[in-house]
Amino acid sequence: MEKEKLIPDTSIFTNPDVYYQFGEDPNLAFQNFLLLVSQLEGEIGVYLPTSVYNELRRMLTTLRIPPKARSVLKVKSPKKYELYIPAFLMYDFIEEIRNRINKGLRVAEEAVKALSYKKPEEVLKSLRRKYREVLREGIVDSKEDLEIILLALELDGVVLSADKGVLSMADSLGLRFWDPKEIKDTLEGFKAW
Amino acid sequence: MEKEKLIPDTSIFTNPDVYYQFGEDPNLAFQNFLLLVSQLEGEIGVYLPTSVYNELRRMLTTLRIPPKARSVLKVKSPKKYELYIPAFLMYDFIEEIRNRINKGLRVAEEAVKALSYKKPEEVLKSLRRKYREVLREGIVDSKEDLEIILLALELDGVVLSADKGVLSMADSLGLRFWDPKEIKDTLEGFKAW
Repeated sequence: MEKEKLIPDTSIFTNPDVYYQFGEDPNLAFQNFLLLVSQLEGEIGVYLPTSVYNELRRMLTTLRIPPKARSVLKVKSPKKYELYIPAFLMYDFIEEIRNRINKGLRVAEEAVKALSYKKPEEVLKSLRRKYREVLREGIVDSKEDLEIILLALELDGVVLSADKGVLSMADSLGLRFWDPKEIKDTLEGFKAW
Repeated sequence: MEKEKLIPDTSIFTNPDVYYQFGEDPNLAFQNFLLLVSQLEGEIGVYLPTSVYNELRRMLTTLRIPPKARSVLKVKSPKKYELYIPAFLMYDFIEEIRNRINKGLRVAEEAVKALSYKKPEEVLKSLRRKYREVLREGIVDSKEDLEIILLALELDGVVLSADKGVLSMADSLGLRFWDPKEIKDTLEGFKAW
């Protein structure tokens, strides 16, 4: 019987601030994370929604699952046609998106005005960066993100992510999550038992 | 016992294509709609979430509820901390928003490029219009919209709206809605019984 089900997103293996604890590059980090979990002898399972697994395959140059770790890694999507979420979550999300959409328009207006004293290439570059910041950062903005949350809800699992939007939605739903920089230490804590 | 609970949003009383069936201006339309419902002698109730009621008060110059219609109009917010919605709804919503956010950036980039052959005021005007079109139209984008949906879900009511985003979300949840241009005819159908 698994004591914990871990649901990592790709950021754990692609964000250098996080993957360094497991290995020097994303490929090694992914393998070492799985090997560490497999040493816990069935106490911990790792679950990846299909969408996140496919995203990881695109991001890692070679996604290799060590034979020892085969039994701990499970690819499984959330049952999104059976799961229900509290209405307030949608409510908060729409309010948040609405504010961000308004900010996005201000970013675009500023870009148009900045053209009077800046070069077009500079303006476009800064427009893209600011627009992304305002509309995408710190918010759940992809089906991959949402599937992490839904799978954790379904399995009562632990969310592993370095994405603020994912962690904040997980927290608002009362899900467990681990500090992304302390995943290795926490796993080693299980060994000590 | 009410046969139907109607949950109208403000568009029913502010969109000329819709309110004309009840009266020549939004104020009269609102009153006549309520009077028509009150003639059905308790068969139909009208429910407005507080947020929508307040929005209506800002939009109508004089919101007057005819004394006869007092008993059919109920101001009531959805129980958003108790209600649950299917996860696929959030899933679809995030996918839709993500596409729209990408389109919004292209609209902004086009505006910056258009400055080489258009006046800044023209560019800004068209930017605001297109950005609104791309990011707001045809999608549930406010808490008022969502409260209409949630209240219909809670009460198993009929959604009355001229907003495509609201009608499409209502439909995807399996809620009933009436063609906004045929609300009066439908109400009169109840009388015939």
